[in-house]
Amino acid sequence: MIPTERHLPYYVPKTEVERRLAELQASLARQDVAAAWIDGIADLFYYAGSAQSATLLVPAQGRPRYVVRMSIERARAESPLAVEPFAGGRALFAAAAELIGASGRLGAAFEITPASLYAKLVECFGASRVADVGPAIRRRRAVKSAWEIEQIHRAAEQATRIFARMPTMARQYETELELSAAIEFELRKMGHPGPIRLRRIGQELAMIVVVAGDSALYPTNFDGPVGGEGPSPAAASGAGWKPMKDGETLMADMVTAHNGYHADDARTWFLGREIPAAVRQAHAFCTDMLAVLESHLKPGVAAGEVHRLTTEWVARQSAPSGLMGFGENQVKFFGHGVGLELDGLPVIAAKQEFILEPGNVIAVEPKAFLPGVGAVGVENTYVITPAGCESLCPTPLEISAI
Amino acid sequence: MIPTERHLPYYVPKTEVERRLAELQASLARQDVAAAWIDGIADLFYYAGSAQSATLLVPAQGRPRYVVRMSIERARAESPLAVEPFAGGRALFAAAAELIGASGRLGAAFEITPASLYAKLVECFGASRVADVGPAIRRRRAVKSAWEIEQIHRAAEQATRIFARMPTMARQYETELELSAAIEFELRKMGHPGPIRLRRIGQELAMIVVVAGDSALYPTNFDGPVGGEGPSPAAASGAGWKPMKDGETLMADMVTAHNGYHADDARTWFLGREIPAAVRQAHAFCTDMLAVLESHLKPGVAAGEVHRLTTEWVARQSAPSGLMGFGENQVKFFGHGVGLELDGLPVIAAKQEFILEPGNVIAVEPKAFLPGVGAVGVENTYVITPAGCESLCPTPLEISAI
Repeated sequence: MIPTERHLPYYVPKTEVERRLAELQASLARQDVAAAWIDGIADLFYYAGSAQSATLLVPAQGRPRYVVRMSIERARAESPLAVEPFAGGRALFAAAAELIGASGRLGAAFEITPASLYAKLVECFGASRVADVGPAIRRRRAVKSAWEIEQIHRAAEQATRIFARMPTMARQYETELELSAAIEFELRKMGHPGPIRLRRIGQELAMIVVVAGDSALYPTNFDGPVGGEGPSPAAASGAGWKPMKDGETLMADMVTAHNGYHADDARTWFLGREIPAAVRQAHAFCTDMLAVLESHLKPGVAAGEVHRLTTEWVARQSAPSGLMGFGENQVKFFGHGVGLELDGLPVIAAKQEFILEPGNVIAVEPKAFLPGVGAVGVENTYVITPAGCESLCPTPLEISAI
Repeated sequence: MIPTERHLPYYVPKTEVERRLAELQASLARQDVAAAWIDGIADLFYYAGSAQSATLLVPAQGRPRYVVRMSIERARAESPLAVEPFAGGRALFAAAAELIGASGRLGAAFEITPASLYAKLVECFGASRVADVGPAIRRRRAVKSAWEIEQIHRAAEQATRIFARMPTMARQYETELELSAAIEFELRKMGHPGPIRLRRIGQELAMIVVVAGDSALYPTNFDGPVGGEGPSPAAASGAGWKPMKDGETLMADMVTAHNGYHADDARTWFLGREIPAAVRQAHAFCTDMLAVLESHLKPGVAAGEVHRLTTEWVARQSAPSGLMGFGENQVKFFGHGVGLELDGLPVIAAKQEFILEPGNVIAVEPKAFLPGVGAVGVENTYVITPAGCESLCPTPLEISAI
């Protein structure tokens, strides 16, 4: 039962869903795929406007079939599409078979489709008739509409609000974990859902990473430059039990989220009265590097070219230790797409052929890591505009002593 | 770099890992599987003692090969196994090929293996030589050791501590989301990692579900009896923007976690001076039902038999409305296994042949839902003992007015 008194303030506009489906259909036609089988939660939210448990069958031409397991009632309230209640696996496979005909191919996103389902699709249609449409979906989703950028902007505002309070908040808590918990408390009250969506299966992340001193250098299984001990070997990244101490840097790297859309922004503070010259210099290197990256982020440039030009700039400077991560945590990218998932396209890394265009949203994160001191640097989420790029987080980039 | 100053208080004992691997090897031999390819994060933590990104190749006989992508340093510090650095996909496939020989089968957990990897395994070894060992792994993991039960006990203690503070905490906040955020703040300070591990791909859940009044009846995509509007259609379950009001019930359903192990416990309060008779009766029905379930939870009994006997008991009573969920949220189970994942075995549902044995840990959740009032009922995490079962959460079951 959906109560008469409802409080959900956000929905996905019908025009968004219609345009996205039209784009998907054109893409399927180009890939010679007769229909797509869509059941990932972020993909469903994107193409149906609802994150309910469902399979959305989208033919290259004609009307999509939105088959909902749970909740049917809620999908009806949230999605502009006509909802068909799930009537068993056999009926669903029959619907897919009908859409692809005798010889057409069925598309699925292989990176998020479990082998248990894939094996059944292959059994039913043959391996040569099951195609991977994951890359095309991710590529398409990397171009955000004005409405989507507004959602990401609102996510970034969560970070901006927290950053403004950090100087007072940081000194109220003893350990990384306590400060992280306090920031998460504030974010949740702003509507942050808690879980962060990542496309890669098995990757997981707490809402934010708060690290002081050498914690930032602690290696993790996460493909990002900032480490963190985490609370246990089972949840081995981000804030841990470490007390925050004078003479260390404090980095807060926040994955904020609004209505399904993420932003990713970080700032650094120094715990103590005077920021040592080495820390100040290493941090300034990162903010200079951010300016270089900014200057290259514009339509028509390949992501790999942004990486190459910035790498050349770095080579001409004397870079600080642990640039882009220390030891195993050193990453090969300078930035990554964000949106309905944190690990989006484009990736600002060598040889990436992705050509930037207006509507791409990219979190860029020049950071460096000083043993015995901690992380320095920043992260900003940018939207690519016709003229260049625009940061969604206005918080000053400077490191300040707190 | 792993800093010299470390703060992680917990590890998986070497004896645990050795025993688990020996059990897995015996299970592989029984299934006629020459080696298992293990790369799910919960399975890795179980069999290697570290949640780092890796592939653990376990032959039915002989020495496992623990091939680690990230972090090698950290896996070395956490796992009792010998760590081999990842040297590319080709070398990994060659290692698997060597372990299974010319005609042996390779096992993988199909429910968590992405189609992209499965398709490569099939290409390399042929579909008939790639076997699903997911069910056997989940079955084995359902029997917890004394050390594991201690971890789950500590997870349950987090809930016990929060429940004791609920009467004062609940009245300090206006909305479900605020109260949920405040409880999460406390849980995180106790070491809760934030993300909840679920085996089913695409299922996700906030740390806890706090619902007041009709929110509890709001349908969700989650296969549980308690609903919740959530903060947006993109994160459509659990606490939402709804103000908590007098005359409503307040249910706090908490998925707590310690060192990778979960517990799942819930209690209910009534917001107001006097609990209406209908609410009191419906809640008492649930606690009576819990006692019935408790009486059947003992070694040697099939999970389906616990369900059948309890269903028969329910049929002899006059059950309240919305027993085990309202509308679409009504679930077909009375309880579920918990451990490294929330959606564990056994499931207390019809026809489940799983025979209970000492060491099973099961969250049992008799709940009912009254339109206009909200949820009533409880959830307790039990460990099966030689004599019967034991609750890990001593908080009184009664509903109280706050």
